[in-house]
Amino acid sequence: VAKVSLNWLNSVERAQFVSALANIFEHSAWIAERAADERPFDSVADLHASLMSTAAAMPPEQISSLIKSHPDLASKVQRAAGLTMESISEQDSAGLDLLSDAEFAAFEELNDAYKAKFDFPFVVCVKRLTKDAILDTFRTRLNNDPNLEQQNALAEIKRIAGLRLAELVEASEALSIYGTLSTHVLDTRDGVPARGVAIELIELARQGKSRTVATSVTNDDGRTDVPLICGRPLPIGLYELRFHVGAYFEGRSVAPSEPGFLDVIPIRFGISNPESHIHVPLLVSPWSYTTYRGS
Amino acid sequence: VAKVSLNWLNSVERAQFVSALANIFEHSAWIAERAADERPFDSVADLHASLMSTAAAMPPEQISSLIKSHPDLASKVQRAAGLTMESISEQDSAGLDLLSDAEFAAFEELNDAYKAKFDFPFVVCVKRLTKDAILDTFRTRLNNDPNLEQQNALAEIKRIAGLRLAELVEASEALSIYGTLSTHVLDTRDGVPARGVAIELIELARQGKSRTVATSVTNDDGRTDVPLICGRPLPIGLYELRFHVGAYFEGRSVAPSEPGFLDVIPIRFGISNPESHIHVPLLVSPWSYTTYRGS
Amino acid sequence: VAKVSLNWLNSVERAQFVSALANIFEHSAWIAERAADERPFDSVADLHASLMSTAAAMPPEQISSLIKSHPDLASKVQRAAGLTMESISEQDSAGLDLLSDAEFAAFEELNDAYKAKFDFPFVVCVKRLTKDAILDTFRTRLNNDPNLEQQNALAEIKRIAGLRLAELVEASEALSIYGTLSTHVLDTRDGVPARGVAIELIELARQGKSRTVATSVTNDDGRTDVPLICGRPLPIGLYELRFHVGAYFEGRSVAPSEPGFLDVIPIRFGISNPESHIHVPLLVSPWSYTTYRGS
Amino acid sequence: VAKVSLNWLNSVERAQFVSALANIFEHSAWIAERAADERPFDSVADLHASLMSTAAAMPPEQISSLIKSHPDLASKVQRAAGLTMESISEQDSAGLDLLSDAEFAAFEELNDAYKAKFDFPFVVCVKRLTKDAILDTFRTRLNNDPNLEQQNALAEIKRIAGLRLAELVEASEALSIYGTLSTHVLDTRDGVPARGVAIELIELARQGKSRTVATSVTNDDGRTDVPLICGRPLPIGLYELRFHVGAYFEGRSVAPSEPGFLDVIPIRFGISNPESHIHVPLLVSPWSYTTYRGS
Repeated sequence: VAKVSLNWLNSVERAQFVSALANIFEHSAWIAERAADERPFDSVADLHASLMSTAAAMPPEQISSLIKSHPDLASKVQRAAGLTMESISEQDSAGLDLLSDAEFAAFEELNDAYKAKFDFPFVVCVKRLTKDAILDTFRTRLNNDPNLEQQNALAEIKRIAGLRLAELVEASEALSIYGTLSTHVLDTRDGVPARGVAIELIELARQGKSRTVATSVTNDDGRTDVPLICGRPLPIGLYELRFHVGAYFEGRSVAPSEPGFLDVIPIRFGISNPESHIHVPLLVSPWSYTTYRGS
Repeated sequence: VAKVSLNWLNSVERAQFVSALANIFEHSAWIAERAADERPFDSVADLHASLMSTAAAMPPEQISSLIKSHPDLASKVQRAAGLTMESISEQDSAGLDLLSDAEFAAFEELNDAYKAKFDFPFVVCVKRLTKDAILDTFRTRLNNDPNLEQQNALAEIKRIAGLRLAELVEASEALSIYGTLSTHVLDTRDGVPARGVAIELIELARQGKSRTVATSVTNDDGRTDVPLICGRPLPIGLYELRFHVGAYFEGRSVAPSEPGFLDVIPIRFGISNPESHIHVPLLVSPWSYTTYRGS
Repeated sequence: VAKVSLNWLNSVERAQFVSALANIFEHSAWIAERAADERPFDSVADLHASLMSTAAAMPPEQISSLIKSHPDLASKVQRAAGLTMESISEQDSAGLDLLSDAEFAAFEELNDAYKAKFDFPFVVCVKRLTKDAILDTFRTRLNNDPNLEQQNALAEIKRIAGLRLAELVEASEALSIYGTLSTHVLDTRDGVPARGVAIELIELARQGKSRTVATSVTNDDGRTDVPLICGRPLPIGLYELRFHVGAYFEGRSVAPSEPGFLDVIPIRFGISNPESHIHVPLLVSPWSYTTYRGS
Repeated sequence: VAKVSLNWLNSVERAQFVSALANIFEHSAWIAERAADERPFDSVADLHASLMSTAAAMPPEQISSLIKSHPDLASKVQRAAGLTMESISEQDSAGLDLLSDAEFAAFEELNDAYKAKFDFPFVVCVKRLTKDAILDTFRTRLNNDPNLEQQNALAEIKRIAGLRLAELVEASEALSIYGTLSTHVLDTRDGVPARGVAIELIELARQGKSRTVATSVTNDDGRTDVPLICGRPLPIGLYELRFHVGAYFEGRSVAPSEPGFLDVIPIRFGISNPESHIHVPLLVSPWSYTTYRGS
């Protein structure tokens, strides 16, 4: 998707500015409307801050209305009736378009209970969570009191807006709303970077199918050409990296037993901070390996 | 099962000796019959050697008849018609009683093809193999020439007889027909053996359900009170050890992130030698671990 | 040295008992004298406890006299005048017979200062400390108040007596007054125990020459036939293990660079508990190694 | 030292060019003289190649004269009589100015034997070797035949010239004549980069004093701000890195035993390729560590 420049946003007609930012807040173009007066902005962060303070300065009814503009999660009915493209894409990214019937039912029940208790929908920045983590958060937040949930909803709207802005506007600055997950394979048998090792990154699901979220092959430096995850938050959840070291050592003519001691090495780990930089290297011989949380 | 002593076997009436050893070779009591003359035996290995040389010295027709006395693998029909208790127990140990319909069909097809080609059933010491490894071996051996397969069958009968003897007779000597699989968990955060870590050993299946073949909890020394596998061969195949280190560190009040970086650590490895001693230790902190093939 | 049995001690004439145990407490045979009445003893620990409670129950003057019976450390003058064989052997074990002139002077100064302050000699169980640790302890204890030092002296006499008893009497029980230091070398390049690796254990000295306190070569199991230290306390202090892995891998025809990346691997560690069981293994390829404190 | 630009070298008067490059080849300005005609040069590598092909194309007598222009190693007499500044600085970098009398004698003996056999001095690029490695190379090359030694001398002159050029001329390109030695300390107890760990790099000497060639402290990322060695070749030889982890963990309030198990960790390794990139990381808890040859 072609992005617009901050310069363009600062200089265009007010109507174009508002139209471009209309969906940064779900169905709430009026926020962009007011922020238009505060141009020019020095940075994307500056623009984000301005939009958020505009939103937060609204009278309570309007904040309430902003929160209520958000769709339910995983609602087939609402999706059929029409969501913003942004919402659809975000929910799909978390796999909410691929739920089993039982999972759809679980979401529907939680949506109903939440709205019955709080009178507004459950708002969460789904790009920061796996499907399982969304359900965990949903169940936890259902027990909160209404004031806390209103604050939580606003905090999540801020995160959603930040990510939507970053998708829309070219940033020269490094964005602290993204994380990275990287790896590195060292061959400790021969003291060289392991080249050509196939790697898969799996998002583990408590039930149903786990999803492969990245595949790669190590380069001459034993690294992947691009990090396994970058340019987006690292969704909170459980993961498994799988390193195909059996094929690698076979390719180096290390005579294997049949079957070899090590073939596909799974490293299972949790991510709890979507904006962190997580490095999970593998130091490996045909008979031994070490892994650790690097950065 | 109460075992008999070598002394008893050496001193009892010939008929009792033959009766006790009747099923060491499937439906072939005549081998025990001839071995009875060679008493006394110095050791279980000595008795085993005598039985095997008796079997091997038979004229070809009788060897052929010995091989043909063996049942098909995973044959519902034959099982209904009656096998030796030894065969039933051995086939069950490899999970051949728990096959899916597709797997039963695969075995039936292989049994038919093998007998059509060689005119005798496929004989293999199933206690030395996982279900997947049995199928792999079956497919490989189907391509052999008849002479080699007759030798293979005899070699497997020797292994079966060795294990059946060891089940039956008390041995004072260490038995080289068994292997051991053991583990050890070291807490490298605090420099102590990790106590109370729950461990599962899974036999991985290419298709269908993997089987949990052992569960244990580490003791004060970071070891399991008995090895995960001992007193039998280590079936050739793929395995996964799972170490529940998240609960262990939580029990030591190591403040976790949510979710923690490490929770259940899977170590996946292959076993290719059923008579070996394999030690798979885990050196672990909340953020790092090392494993290796020890002995 | 031939040991006597507990049975013998329990049954011999009183005079023989006293004579045998005369030097358990430095120049204080009267303690054995009194303990003789409490025979028979069930175990060496029991005998030790009896001797110690006899000693502790003495009136203050006699305790004072017991403490004063001990020689100065590293005193050339006293050694020339005659010490018990036990004292000579113990001081030699800590290297106090091999001091430089500067070190002799340091001990002399400390001995003088200590006696000037407390009016009794500095008593310490030298078998539990390296030379450096003796000096550290000496300097620390010089700052204590007299009551505490009298208690310390008695506690050390108890340790000395325990070790002298263990040298003298055959024990059927495991002795908790000893420690062990062991190692194990795993070749992670080939997944086998590393056999034939030369190992040295060095006691590091802050000044002057470090002492090699054990040398060994790994056996088929990658271990040393006997632990590097056993059958005595592990002297508190700093140590270095040196593993000659370069020669080992050369012997396995691992083509080395010149010089190889790893040749002699030093592992430097401290021992703080003389009665502990410390295992310091090495997992090693030509390009990588791991060590840890095991038990 | 201020460097000159390639541009300047390409455009200045011939005399200035020759004067600037006069000492690239020891006392052999005539090589720069001839290379001046081939200006302009595209890169420093291009200039280096041109100088070398000029040198190599000379008639044998002149090549011989070039080789003979080089000084002896570690010759007090020659140094007193005057060497080029370049030679002095290079010999000092390898510690040849700090030899013991015995070492000076060893060099003198080798210099004499070499010149007696070959009739030219031993030429070696000392910046690529430690003092011990220089002596090893010297002894090895003394056994070569004269033709090979003439080739070796020329190859070394090429290396010396390359390094002198790189010192003199600003390069925009990365120089393959340099290596790097770097490290990284990961705290596996807490899963963070270890910050504030003091590090020393020691060049080990077989005899006499080892030299500390770099000291540093790890930054927030667990790395040193600049590599331990960079911008020059890595001298072939034996090294020891010392990591002061005891103080680090004490600073994090990890209650130590007295003495702690790990305090100063020595990692001893060899460098055999001066132009390589060697990374020697440390993964460390208070009770365990791992190191490996990374890149």
